[in-house]
Amino acid sequence: MNRRHFNFSFLVGATALAADPLQAIAASSPKDLRVNGARLNEHLKALSEFGKNPQGGVSRVAYSEADRQGREYVMGLMRGAKLDVSIDAAGNLVGRRAAANNDGRLPPILFGSHIDSVPEGGNYDGDVGSLGAIEVAQTLAENNVTLRHPIEVIIFQNEEGGLIGSEAVIGALTERELDLVNKSGRTVREGIRFIGGDVAKLAGVKREKGSIAAYLELHIEQGGTLEAEKIDIGVVEGIVGINWWDVTIEGFANHAGTTAMNNRQDALLAAAKFIDAVNRVVTSVPGRQVGTVGRIQALPGAPNVIPGKVVCSLELRDLDAAKIQMLYQKIRGEADQIAKSSRVTFDFKPLNANIPAPTDPRIRGIIDSSARELGLTTKLMPSGAGHDAQDMARIGPVGMIFVPSIGGISHSPKEFSQPKDIENGANVLLASLLKVDSL
Amino acid sequence: MNRRHFNFSFLVGATALAADPLQAIAASSPKDLRVNGARLNEHLKALSEFGKNPQGGVSRVAYSEADRQGREYVMGLMRGAKLDVSIDAAGNLVGRRAAANNDGRLPPILFGSHIDSVPEGGNYDGDVGSLGAIEVAQTLAENNVTLRHPIEVIIFQNEEGGLIGSEAVIGALTERELDLVNKSGRTVREGIRFIGGDVAKLAGVKREKGSIAAYLELHIEQGGTLEAEKIDIGVVEGIVGINWWDVTIEGFANHAGTTAMNNRQDALLAAAKFIDAVNRVVTSVPGRQVGTVGRIQALPGAPNVIPGKVVCSLELRDLDAAKIQMLYQKIRGEADQIAKSSRVTFDFKPLNANIPAPTDPRIRGIIDSSARELGLTTKLMPSGAGHDAQDMARIGPVGMIFVPSIGGISHSPKEFSQPKDIENGANVLLASLLKVDSL
Repeated sequence: MNRRHFNFSFLVGATALAADPLQAIAASSPKDLRVNGARLNEHLKALSEFGKNPQGGVSRVAYSEADRQGREYVMGLMRGAKLDVSIDAAGNLVGRRAAANNDGRLPPILFGSHIDSVPEGGNYDGDVGSLGAIEVAQTLAENNVTLRHPIEVIIFQNEEGGLIGSEAVIGALTERELDLVNKSGRTVREGIRFIGGDVAKLAGVKREKGSIAAYLELHIEQGGTLEAEKIDIGVVEGIVGINWWDVTIEGFANHAGTTAMNNRQDALLAAAKFIDAVNRVVTSVPGRQVGTVGRIQALPGAPNVIPGKVVCSLELRDLDAAKIQMLYQKIRGEADQIAKSSRVTFDFKPLNANIPAPTDPRIRGIIDSSARELGLTTKLMPSGAGHDAQDMARIGPVGMIFVPSIGGISHSPKEFSQPKDIENGANVLLASLLKVDSL
Repeated sequence: MNRRHFNFSFLVGATALAADPLQAIAASSPKDLRVNGARLNEHLKALSEFGKNPQGGVSRVAYSEADRQGREYVMGLMRGAKLDVSIDAAGNLVGRRAAANNDGRLPPILFGSHIDSVPEGGNYDGDVGSLGAIEVAQTLAENNVTLRHPIEVIIFQNEEGGLIGSEAVIGALTERELDLVNKSGRTVREGIRFIGGDVAKLAGVKREKGSIAAYLELHIEQGGTLEAEKIDIGVVEGIVGINWWDVTIEGFANHAGTTAMNNRQDALLAAAKFIDAVNRVVTSVPGRQVGTVGRIQALPGAPNVIPGKVVCSLELRDLDAAKIQMLYQKIRGEADQIAKSSRVTFDFKPLNANIPAPTDPRIRGIIDSSARELGLTTKLMPSGAGHDAQDMARIGPVGMIFVPSIGGISHSPKEFSQPKDIENGANVLLASLLKVDSL
């Protein structure tokens, strides 16, 4: 037992009082604590029933009936883990346990994830981190371990709809976002009421910078790197910045039969050259940046009319905001060339931009050493996906633990992580939590 | 007066009987006959009121109320041109005048076009040929000229929806087409009833091969060639064949943030390379062939998801069916290469195919000489657009006369042809009709 690395005490209760404190310490030395992997995976299976699709996976979209039922199930698990459960005004589920020495001096350590899914999503994105966090809390409770810091298991609402729950926690949720409608048919505003929150009291959920000791999140990788490289645990270096643009290409719609090839101003042909250029630019420099055109509309959109207008999306992601800008400028340069040669115009309208969110270097080290002490291999890697952790990084140090996703498949019924990897991830979360507590 | 070239007689009536036949001949020698260009252009303006759009042009989609009203107006003009007007069972308007020597030996010469428009269309496509044909009939009537052959001005219904009226005339209208719904909200079947036809009697409108002496159609070019080359009249060499395919590209949908660039199977990136290849192949050989990708859908279609599937259209047009096949095979070869390098699959599903429809060489010569005798310049050219004439070519010799379209713009409110060009076109139709009558 290394007392420098954690603080360790007992839940006070009738049975605990009857036991010999020193024996209890010997029986459950915190560094030997392990989660119950079978139970965790059973809980994941049970959660997968809420919003289950006949063809596999779930549609547990935030604010749907399935979401509400899933949250009820999760609150039950939290209570079983001896957490004091509440729903904050934003609708996030919070399971709190007081510190060993509850004098209010130390801020809480938060850890958790989300249980809402995309439409036709899978059973691992968010769920693994949420139920993993509860399993860690339950393991601590069963072993009568309390920490120096209060702990809060937090299950953010509507992560998939734009990190809504964590935005509320950092005071970044906008009126415009409150009016967004998701696949549940409800606005965020209506959804918050539906899941037990209170929009009128949103200001009360805001947490100030420095008000949390740390935020830890276990998550599936959602990429194929760990599986391909046979690595157990990803230590997340940071969450990439994401920039979105709407790109509008204007040519001239004309009759596809009567307009000679050399007289055309074909917006879709220009868009094709642009999509190819985006790929070429993004892959022209070393690094793990990604660039995607995922949405496209050609107008008027008939087989016998030369498209006069195309609107498509452009997304760039990297850990380094300057690199995103460099790539964007190169892409603009390519677009200028295409505009000239194809006699069309390009217009770029910036939409969402998430700035890169690095994780805390000390927590990175803790996650890495915790994993290695468990005999697991690790790799430092960016998170290409957005996570609530990126919001939490604005108010305190964060760390993220990745476990392998088979085939790198995510946001799909085919999403899958091995039970053993999920158990490993939860054990790394537990060990990291104990080390963070001792900082 | 060249009696070899036309047959010429008088409408019988009280006033005609009072006149001196020889004087009438002298006053209106058929080769000096000219249409009333001002009246023709006024009629075009009047027709443009039916389905007029505030921003210009018309939406006179077949089977709409505007279409029905426009047809009423046109029937009035036909009666004014002393034609016996009827609506055939397919809903086509037919204005007939008996031959000079009405013994039923000679089959009729048909000439006309259509007055339905695309949604947000212009005032020239179809209208010029329809009202030009009526103007020719009126000019003949006013000058008391009847021909050796019966004449029929025919205004085909729903040309823009797939040459429906002329398909009925050649017996090619299918049950599937009868169930198509157009922008009027009506099926073709319902539309035919709406405009006064009778689907139960469709078989009766079918005309057998050899049952018509000829079909002539005046039309705007819908391309920019005549205007750019400052030529008055296009002598149509034939109507191009049109082949359509639905092209389905299957990759693998995945998270745009977590899937490294080299692990992607991006169906839209493959589609972009394909669209570029279509353009490259079609422009790689000399000729006037055209190839177009006008419609595209990427699935799931979100900015943050790598498209797993793309469906797009492919259209190829040329006067030579073998050339279309050659281009298609080259495009298939390119698709095979892209499939390999992008790790996607391509599937080509043939849709509509119109075989090329050459015009009659003798009629081409007649149109050319008629135009030249009127002091007009001519150019032999393909029709890149489809026309009812291509159906009529299946049952008899056809000829088509093109007049310039300003800027080559068509299927647009900006569609425009000069009044003088329209008058020229109608005069060439008149002169050609007289020559065809004498064949």
